[in-house]
Amino acid sequence: MINLPVTHYFTRLTLLRESFKRKGIDGFLVTEIHNIRYLTGFTGSLAFLFITKKENIFVTDFRYQEQAEKEILGWNIHIARGEMIKAAKNLYRKMGIKRLGFESSVSYEFFRKLSENLNLKACKGLIEKLREIKEADEINLIKEAASRAETAFQEVRPYIREGIKEKAIACRLEEGLKKRGCRHIPFEVIVASGPNSAMPHARPTEKKLNKGDLVIIDWGGEADGYFSDMTRTLLIEGKNINKKKEIYQLVLEANNRAIAHVSPGIESSKVDGSARDVINKAGYGKFFGHGTGHGIGLQVHELPRITRNVKEVIKENMVFTIEPGIYLPGIGGVRIEDMVLVKSDGSEVLTRLPKKLEIIR
Amino acid sequence: MINLPVTHYFTRLTLLRESFKRKGIDGFLVTEIHNIRYLTGFTGSLAFLFITKKENIFVTDFRYQEQAEKEILGWNIHIARGEMIKAAKNLYRKMGIKRLGFESSVSYEFFRKLSENLNLKACKGLIEKLREIKEADEINLIKEAASRAETAFQEVRPYIREGIKEKAIACRLEEGLKKRGCRHIPFEVIVASGPNSAMPHARPTEKKLNKGDLVIIDWGGEADGYFSDMTRTLLIEGKNINKKKEIYQLVLEANNRAIAHVSPGIESSKVDGSARDVINKAGYGKFFGHGTGHGIGLQVHELPRITRNVKEVIKENMVFTIEPGIYLPGIGGVRIEDMVLVKSDGSEVLTRLPKKLEIIR
Repeated sequence: MINLPVTHYFTRLTLLRESFKRKGIDGFLVTEIHNIRYLTGFTGSLAFLFITKKENIFVTDFRYQEQAEKEILGWNIHIARGEMIKAAKNLYRKMGIKRLGFESSVSYEFFRKLSENLNLKACKGLIEKLREIKEADEINLIKEAASRAETAFQEVRPYIREGIKEKAIACRLEEGLKKRGCRHIPFEVIVASGPNSAMPHARPTEKKLNKGDLVIIDWGGEADGYFSDMTRTLLIEGKNINKKKEIYQLVLEANNRAIAHVSPGIESSKVDGSARDVINKAGYGKFFGHGTGHGIGLQVHELPRITRNVKEVIKENMVFTIEPGIYLPGIGGVRIEDMVLVKSDGSEVLTRLPKKLEIIR
Repeated sequence: MINLPVTHYFTRLTLLRESFKRKGIDGFLVTEIHNIRYLTGFTGSLAFLFITKKENIFVTDFRYQEQAEKEILGWNIHIARGEMIKAAKNLYRKMGIKRLGFESSVSYEFFRKLSENLNLKACKGLIEKLREIKEADEINLIKEAASRAETAFQEVRPYIREGIKEKAIACRLEEGLKKRGCRHIPFEVIVASGPNSAMPHARPTEKKLNKGDLVIIDWGGEADGYFSDMTRTLLIEGKNINKKKEIYQLVLEANNRAIAHVSPGIESSKVDGSARDVINKAGYGKFFGHGTGHGIGLQVHELPRITRNVKEVIKENMVFTIEPGIYLPGIGGVRIEDMVLVKSDGSEVLTRLPKKLEIIR
């Protein structure tokens, strides 16, 4: 369903084949379903790719035969009659493979069966590394996904006030996403208010929004298989909200600082550090327990990871989130999440909704 | 969120521990998220369980701390500060484990890291086998999921007619599922008409229903984490529909035959065979390319598998689908899917919508 020109897929395949020599392999088995979509455009849920130095073989079963024939071009389509793993082993022999690369994301069980009598080489994240760098068409789809998400939010925004249930807001937002053309909701919309907002992965409950509640809303859109992801935090007018305003301003500063640090050549841990420093210095370090961001594209969470421990160099045309947060148990939490596209001279923020604290009266 | 009494979880845990001796292990690492939910009630998406002969240890990260404390009882909750895999290795040492069982569904990459300096034993489907046999409360939730799905369908049914788009029907049905209380849609609703219905896993398109189209609708509901799954096929009045009526009657007969064969003690391949024989004898065997059914519960596809190749003995309180089909490329397909609960003296069909061919005029 991705409307990308077929040449895109072949450029990707060429890049993948360039790693064969380095890895010491003469064939590669692709099993991760998003990677399969990335290389072929296939949107079904069961298939594998068997890529040799010269051949592009796409294997699926009976149920996806027609769909595969419609969706993919330039691949030799095989229909496996028995187990998929047997079909892979047969191709290994038939193609005279000497050493077959496989994705280390396969299950241990799959690996165990595949490894019988085959010479294998585990390859970690080969295609995931290619997917980090987005092409122009992919960026357009991510922008469209973000735009759908923001429009849906703006429509729901006037409805968010004291007395409304978290679930009701989440449900309206999901309906809005569907109406805007999102075929898949990337993850269950988070609406977490008051003490619930101190749980970074809270699910919406029957709780009503109360006076003085912080309200974290974390949601994403979709366009032709590409996702967006963003978070805004609102505050309901009430007593004793100074602490909440304080942590909001801190998180906002952390968010802006990190975005300002994004540019090609910087280490991902430095981007994380630039947000974390703001929060650490104010004494809230232990209340920011997650990483600052993650890549996004065909999956909501993909490479690169923007965290303390990962030292990856940021490159042009990566797309990732910047989402610092502070979560005070019993009081509430704030998270402000944007998506950025790395440009040659810095970054472009793909999420456009305002970030200034909104106090709902 | 599952409203099961806490004793259920401990009965399950006791059953699991009974397999330690047989497997030659003194500890077991649970990583599959549905299995974690099954043993603890935790509904988050990141955690592992470290179960020794005497200790129940639940490990998650900062983000799920509050949720874990709310949802689970009787487990020692640890919050991993660094990588989850390191936390597992530390527990191995701390608990003095001699041989740790792990689920063979983990990724090869996870296995590789875990296996450094640890004595491991791959255990395939230990908890999945427990999950095959449903408890009374689980059966009630599955029935509720099926009931929500059927009510949603009945509301959409009058809307299904010539000229309506597949996507519009799918969208209405999904909205209906949400309104009936389904928090998760188990899979994207399939509405496949005319030639599209010959693709067993077609996704709804912009195509309008035409005269003479077979229309396959495959959808599921949810209740507190448990799923339902069913399929009905309708026919739009038109010319040259005799062939379509013929395959409908065959599939219906295959469906009824298989259901009649379900009882404790029979092999799953025999249940499959009883449906397949009907279709084979009529000469359509090669157009029925998938298995006859699959278990259902916390996942849409779980054990047992009802296929040709698997010889598993059917047991009381298993719940699985019966879904034979015939798919004629270019013409269309028929699939009729019910869910059955195995009873001591046969089976109870959990899906109640009529199966007699409905011709829409």
